[in-house]
Parts: sequence; structure tokens; C-alpha cells
Amino acid sequence: MKAIVVGGAGFIGSHLCDALIRNGNTVVCVDNFSLGTRENVAHLKKNPLFRLYDADASSADSLSAIFEKEHPECVFHLAANSDIQASASDPEVEYRNTYTTTFQVLDCMRKYGVKKLFFASTSAVYGDKGDTVLDENTSNLSPISYYGAAKLGSEALISAFSYMNEMNVLVFRFPNVIGPRLTHGVIFDFIHRLKDNPEQLTILGDGNQTKPYMYVLDLVKAIMRYMDVSDPGITLYNVGTEGTTSVKTIADIVCEEMGLKHVKYIYSGGKSGWKGDVPKFQYCMDKIHSSGWRAEYSSDEAVRKTIRQNL
Amino acid sequence: MKAIVVGGAGFIGSHLCDALIRNGNTVVCVDNFSLGTRENVAHLKKNPLFRLYDADASSADSLSAIFEKEHPECVFHLAANSDIQASASDPEVEYRNTYTTTFQVLDCMRKYGVKKLFFASTSAVYGDKGDTVLDENTSNLSPISYYGAAKLGSEALISAFSYMNEMNVLVFRFPNVIGPRLTHGVIFDFIHRLKDNPEQLTILGDGNQTKPYMYVLDLVKAIMRYMDVSDPGITLYNVGTEGTTSVKTIADIVCEEMGLKHVKYIYSGGKSGWKGDVPKFQYCMDKIHSSGWRAEYSSDEAVRKTIRQNL
Repeated sequence: MKAIVVGGAGFIGSHLCDALIRNGNTVVCVDNFSLGTRENVAHLKKNPLFRLYDADASSADSLSAIFEKEHPECVFHLAANSDIQASASDPEVEYRNTYTTTFQVLDCMRKYGVKKLFFASTSAVYGDKGDTVLDENTSNLSPISYYGAAKLGSEALISAFSYMNEMNVLVFRFPNVIGPRLTHGVIFDFIHRLKDNPEQLTILGDGNQTKPYMYVLDLVKAIMRYMDVSDPGITLYNVGTEGTTSVKTIADIVCEEMGLKHVKYIYSGGKSGWKGDVPKFQYCMDKIHSSGWRAEYSSDEAVRKTIRQNL
Repeated sequence: MKAIVVGGAGFIGSHLCDALIRNGNTVVCVDNFSLGTRENVAHLKKNPLFRLYDADASSADSLSAIFEKEHPECVFHLAANSDIQASASDPEVEYRNTYTTTFQVLDCMRKYGVKKLFFASTSAVYGDKGDTVLDENTSNLSPISYYGAAKLGSEALISAFSYMNEMNVLVFRFPNVIGPRLTHGVIFDFIHRLKDNPEQLTILGDGNQTKPYMYVLDLVKAIMRYMDVSDPGITLYNVGTEGTTSVKTIADIVCEEMGLKHVKYIYSGGKSGWKGDVPKFQYCMDKIHSSGWRAEYSSDEAVRKTIRQNL
């Protein structure tokens, strides 16, 4: 099968390119290298199954030219501004890189008759629901970040485009995803800051922010498993892992793995790390579990594994 | 108070300008005249409380210039492509005129510190829920039209912007709205086609499409009543009227009011008028009714009144 992976040089996208090629698919990787990197796909460069386009998927013309030339059978859309903290002061980034990319991907699919899509959504579409365990039927989705808003808007687009054009779509709402090729986030920050100063660590918020962290290769395995979903319309899953990990626990594991003792934690205070951050959430995963899939690594295990890889 | 009405020369927007001015507010009307008309606001032209800008709200520069100059205290955002049937073959219209206008309105409010917004949303955000009576907590919103998708995406943007910038927002999900200055829709179509040919009438679908039709001045009264909502964050209401009217009934009333007998109805067939049209819906309005408001005209009454005005 020939697949376009939009955002294919990114953290998650590049692992997906690896898996698709391993399974014998031809991969057309599209990335504007805003967060993705050439290093992430350097090892694929000489593979005859791999093609790389340096192009911005928010541009109708750029994306159309690729669809026109490549005639893909399916699309994996993972392009987005994934750095939520960065866009808090510049919502235009989400408008362009997260929402508009989705619109252009769907509009190209409509124009070129491509019927199969995987879309990377997020827990951020729910907003801050406190202690509610979030399932796919939770109502009143109220994103508190521009990122969450652009992803929820993207899901709405997918709903209309799939209905109007008989598309077959798999949507995963990702939790925090970590592992090799990570570019930002709390683990990345803590390691870098402790390398600079092993005596003390500033922790945003009160350290009790608690979320599930999923290992990226677990996530890619799930995408590969469900990509051939044959139900018409949209199939949507919350995807995650066992348990959750607090920011304070991440700090402890980073210190432990770096062999640091008596590091002084300085809390910036408040319940969330920054405005727009959801401090706590928990997924109900009955839907995906009952279909026979489970993540291999728990949240704590994924955190430790990622720290070791990034030291 | 000084208010910007985006889409203020449109069908609903122009009636809102009238009401705001009648109550002593200064109105800055912004319209690109894609569906709005100069005739709709011609009677306001010499009113010292009224200013008119021919500008496209999907352009950040155009809209910023108006905010910069006018320093509004609040915004009524009614700009959108309201002709759902027309955008079915051109989703870019909804991306630009419905979604992007919302993004730019919110981003201007953020930049210029405007904290008060009214937003015109729609029943189309729910999608086709069959016989479910739709209330504000209905889950799994699944728009089937590009219009509904762009409006649901707009609601998602409002959620994030209001949280990030402490905005106070009133959202009404409109049903079908009819009355003076109507520019398109089933009543408009039937009258025009029967004037052309009083012998027969083509009816899209099977004629059983059944929805609530609300009289535009009832809607404007509701906006005026709730515009000073003081609850922080977003206050969202389904707004509608008593009962629903089928397309077949509309045809009957049009014929009756035009004095036509024995008109032959020709049905195009199928359950909906066109792809993307929700054939039936019904609102639960307990929330807005329990706060003390009710529409004056029922759906059937609004239909008859509108037909008489448009003959």
C-alpha cells in the first residue's frame, strides 16, 4: 500500500514511517520541519520504499502537488504543533499547523478520491474534566488550550468530510507520548535542566499534575493493528496505557536514573504547569481493551525507559 | 456600549444591529457582503450610532484595523457562510467564512483585550441524531455538513480563547431562522419557484424533513435579553421555538398563501434535501425556558408570517 504520512519526520510520525516500511508499504513522508527533523528519517533516506517531501501541509498548492504526483491509497495525518506550551502565547500556530493542515489534508483526499485516513487526536480535546474518567462518549468537550481546540475542530472536519465523501477514518486520542526522538516536554526539560544544574530543579506547578505517559512504540503498534479497520465512517478510540505518573514522580525517576541525590525541588506553584495545561486526566480504555489490544509498557515504565534513552 | 457586529449586514445580523441601536448602543457593522447586503442596513446609514465597514473578517489585517480604530467593548459574531447547500461542493467557503472569521475575531479580542462575545452557533453541530431530542449535554457531536463542522470548530476555539483570556461568552445554537430579509432556504425557494411555475413544485427529498423554524425577531429578542449574562466563561443555549414544521407543510402553506390550488408536488426522493442536510431534529429547550424566556411565534406561525412577508 502507498501511504502519505503528514508530519512523517516528527517524533511519532517518524516511528510510524519505520513501522509502515517494515511491513512493506511505500511511504510518502511530508514534513515542513517545524518540529520534525531530517535526523528522524535519515536512516530511511536510501530505502526504495521511502520518499521525502519538504512541504507545508497547510498550503493547498504544496499538498495538492504531492497528491497529484503520488496517488496515495491512504493518509496518516500527524502534522500539528505538538508543543502546547509554546502556542499558548501564539494561537496562530495552532490555526495554521494543527487545524489548517487537517483541512487541507481532507480537502486533498476529497479532490483526489482518497478514502482512508488515520488521524492523531489528543486527550486535550476533553479540556479539564477534573477526576472524571474520560471515555469516548464523554460530553461537553471543552478544550482549554489552543492546541486542544484545533484538534477538536479537526475532529469536527473529519466528521463532515467522512460523511460527505464516504471516507473510512481511524481516530486515536493520544495521551502524553514519550520515547526515542522526543523533542520537548517534562522529561526532556528535567534532564536538560539537571544537566545544567544538578543541585536543584524547578518544577512547574505543584508537582501533582498526573497523567498517563505512553511509550511511542506501543502507540505505533496500536496504529498498525487498527489501520485496517473496515467499519464505515469514523472509528474513534482513547489510546493509552496502565496507570498515570505525577510530575513529582518523573522528577524522582530522572534524579534516580542520573544518580543524583538531594536535588532541591523548587515548585513554581499552582495546580497546572502553565495556563492551558490540563493538570490531571485519566482515560477509560474499555473500548480499545475489549477489542483485544493493550499497551506493553505502563506509564511509569514508559517514563523510566524514556529517561534512560535520553540521558 | 460600543459593539462590533461581524456579519452585521446579513439576514440575522442586520436585525441585531437594529435592536442594538434601538437600545442606545453604538454599532460597528462589519460585513464583506458575500451574503449580507447594503439594503439590509441602508435605513441605518444616517444614524449617528451606526458605522459600516466593508471588510472581510477572515483577514487578520482588516479586522485588526477596525478593532484598533474603534475600541469595541463587545463583539457579536454572526459572520458565516449560512448557505449550507452551496458549500456542500466547496468546503473552502466554510473554512474561510465560518471558521477563519471566528479565529480572527477571537484573536483580535485577545490582542485588544475585548472580553465579551456573542456567538451564533447552530443545530448543525450535532449532526444527524435521528429522533434524539437534542439538549446542550448531548454527546458525540458529529456534524455531517462542512458548515456544522466549521461551527463546531468555532465553538472549540471559543472554549480555549475564553479560558486563556477570561472572556465572557454567550453561545446560542440557532435552529432554522426565518423572517424579513431572508436570502435563501426552503421558503425562499418555494415562493420563487411557484412564481415561475404555479402548476407544479419540485420538493427536494421526500417532504418529511421536519425542523423547528424560528422567527428572526424572536431570536434577536433572546440575544438582547441574554447578552448581559454575567456568568464567567461560556453560557450555551439551544434556542428555538415550539414545534417543528415539515417541508411538505411549508409547501402547503406557501400554496395556500399564494392562493394556488392543485399544485403538483414532485419529490426528488430520499430522506434529506441534499447531502449534508439533517432531515429531522428537535431541541430540548428546558435550559433556556427555565431561565424565563420563550419564543413568541411557534414554528408554523413563523413559517406563515415569513411567507406573507416574502410574497
